[in-house]
Amino acid sequence: MLSVAEALRAVLDHAAPLPPRRVGLSEALGCALAESVTADRDLPPFDKALLDGFAVRSADLAGPVPFELEVIEEITAGRVPTRSLGPGQCSAIMTGAPMPDGADAVVMVEDSDRRGARVLLSPRKPVSPDAGRLTRGREMRQGEGLLSPGARLDPVKLGLLASVGHADPLVAPRPVVTIASTGDELVPPDQVPGPGQIRNSNATVLEGLVRASSGLPDVAPIAPDVPEALRAVLSRGLANDVLLVTGGVSAGKLDLVPGTLAELGMTAVFHKIRLKPGKPLLFGIGPPRADGRPGTLVFGLPGNPVSGVVGFLLFVAPALKALRGLGAEPPEAIPARLSKPFSHRGDRPTYYPARLLDRGEPGGPAVEPLDWAGSADLRTVATADGFASFEAGDRDYEPGTPVPFLPLPRPD
Amino acid sequence: MLSVAEALRAVLDHAAPLPPRRVGLSEALGCALAESVTADRDLPPFDKALLDGFAVRSADLAGPVPFELEVIEEITAGRVPTRSLGPGQCSAIMTGAPMPDGADAVVMVEDSDRRGARVLLSPRKPVSPDAGRLTRGREMRQGEGLLSPGARLDPVKLGLLASVGHADPLVAPRPVVTIASTGDELVPPDQVPGPGQIRNSNATVLEGLVRASSGLPDVAPIAPDVPEALRAVLSRGLANDVLLVTGGVSAGKLDLVPGTLAELGMTAVFHKIRLKPGKPLLFGIGPPRADGRPGTLVFGLPGNPVSGVVGFLLFVAPALKALRGLGAEPPEAIPARLSKPFSHRGDRPTYYPARLLDRGEPGGPAVEPLDWAGSADLRTVATADGFASFEAGDRDYEPGTPVPFLPLPRPD
Repeated sequence: MLSVAEALRAVLDHAAPLPPRRVGLSEALGCALAESVTADRDLPPFDKALLDGFAVRSADLAGPVPFELEVIEEITAGRVPTRSLGPGQCSAIMTGAPMPDGADAVVMVEDSDRRGARVLLSPRKPVSPDAGRLTRGREMRQGEGLLSPGARLDPVKLGLLASVGHADPLVAPRPVVTIASTGDELVPPDQVPGPGQIRNSNATVLEGLVRASSGLPDVAPIAPDVPEALRAVLSRGLANDVLLVTGGVSAGKLDLVPGTLAELGMTAVFHKIRLKPGKPLLFGIGPPRADGRPGTLVFGLPGNPVSGVVGFLLFVAPALKALRGLGAEPPEAIPARLSKPFSHRGDRPTYYPARLLDRGEPGGPAVEPLDWAGSADLRTVATADGFASFEAGDRDYEPGTPVPFLPLPRPD
Repeated sequence: MLSVAEALRAVLDHAAPLPPRRVGLSEALGCALAESVTADRDLPPFDKALLDGFAVRSADLAGPVPFELEVIEEITAGRVPTRSLGPGQCSAIMTGAPMPDGADAVVMVEDSDRRGARVLLSPRKPVSPDAGRLTRGREMRQGEGLLSPGARLDPVKLGLLASVGHADPLVAPRPVVTIASTGDELVPPDQVPGPGQIRNSNATVLEGLVRASSGLPDVAPIAPDVPEALRAVLSRGLANDVLLVTGGVSAGKLDLVPGTLAELGMTAVFHKIRLKPGKPLLFGIGPPRADGRPGTLVFGLPGNPVSGVVGFLLFVAPALKALRGLGAEPPEAIPARLSKPFSHRGDRPTYYPARLLDRGEPGGPAVEPLDWAGSADLRTVATADGFASFEAGDRDYEPGTPVPFLPLPRPD
């Protein structure tokens, strides 16, 4: 049986960044750029007024205020000035409009007194060249490199792409993740379960976790434990980047999932991990896809909801990050300390739902393991901030013992 | 002219949480719950097997291994057991299936040797009552309170709602935010600007910022400086929760925006803030909406892109948070220290693009102001982590001086 670290290495070995794709600017938010971007023109493309007022020759404004100038033109944004300033002349100008030839500064409209074809200007401080003006190319020069591959596209970088007309950047796309729930015992959340049945909560939890990892969830209908139904749902998933199957991966007779996946061309990489909860975790690679993309990453998660959550945090979340070209790394654990005595019994490393009590304590926040009924008890996990991790072996832990803490995501 | 703090107070005074609405579980991710939720039934609804194996009477398993038992039934998940166990009897059982009457524990299939109608069980440790079983109601009891108003719906809490059939929770919804760009000088990012024109980057930046604040952006087409076109776009925005207008809010002749908004029934709250960049920032409240919802929050942001970013971070982001029922608070500033000398001149508090150099330094991270060409220079901001804020007044700052730092969002 693989250790958690060995299993994660095996997963990340197969999680190469997805082939880059051109997407619209909205869709590119948060993605890693997969190309270099240069400026297609100078920006601003002309000397530009930064405020509403009067474009002047600063040399004209020497001596005591007010200065009386002739207004020879009105230049609005989006129009092009038609007249050059001579001595004693100015043009009324709007923010964003091109400066007329001869002008080197703008006096703000609040400091003006317009009188028909003339204006009295009383600037509050001396007007130096460049005041209120952004010169052509000051922001960027045509051909200049703006962004490099790997740049993470935040709102401002997207705006930069927009300003140079780069409206369909090449990015590492978000993975599409099919969520397939299996089991005759499951009914959808909006239905009343019959005898022996429960509502499917796994798909909802996993959909939220996929979104929190910036994947694009594709939630398939519940597949009953019947080969044909299972085959349809699993085939759907094998067309996408990642397939999460819940239920049907432990050792029982009706666990058709591993067999059906094998029939569909999946190569199993591992089937069990030395881990609690979440031991029966299947990982495999689907067959190469029609369009030449690499095979789907397949995760068979246990049906017990908490096992699925732990498996997701430890293996699926890092894989999604790697597929997005954001690095191949283990999930980030917070160093924390036990708030109270805790006894752990068992031959597997254990992730135990816990609450962070105090984020400011030296040596890390205090972490309190919760009263938990095991891998089917999602309710307790809903009151947790994440999982405290304990090594294999029987041991009584003292308060203050350092324990790594795996946080649950808190999507905005 | 209002201070930043006064302006923010005025904004938050008008940003009451949106009327709660029922949404599907997917849409509810990250939202604040606006009702109490109780369990509609015991969970699990029956004593449930936690693993694949054999449901047994633990009292039968005393003495040396193996224990030989009669297998009287096969119980799969989703089915109901039909037979009670007597002494020396067991039933084969799958994870998630209901336990048969008489059984109090499950021995895992890995510890069994099935021989037709009989099985040899060799559990690795003594089998105590409750081993491998989750008793009815252990996770939750019918009628028990599960979640309270204000609970933030993360993936696990959504799973809890799914498990009790609460598939359309009442939540504080995400605000719909119309983004209206105005100005004859603007063309969309995928077009080549003509003379005097530039591409519209504001809408792209604001759309990303709205998404980063978990609002739902509604991007309107660019409105030229023509009253009818402007009226159409602004009316569209006044039907939604928030309207962001860029351009057309300073003092120029063609600034039709404030007048058109007034005609459409907006009440102006303020029009200028003692702030750089971003002084000409209009805030107002639209007329009450048809369905009784409160008036739209209207923000008129300056056309210079960086002014729009600063205005968004200082006023719009806190307003969106308040509309979502997540508290009415100023944006969170990080205490930081200047990495190098900096001179600030001016009569307004200034937000200056800066980079964080070292997140680990005592007294806060070191912050380096960038070489910036002013409010039209978005390119420099694309290399920044946020804005260092300086008070009004002319002052030379020494390295190490504490400066509050307003981070730019980094959406995943």
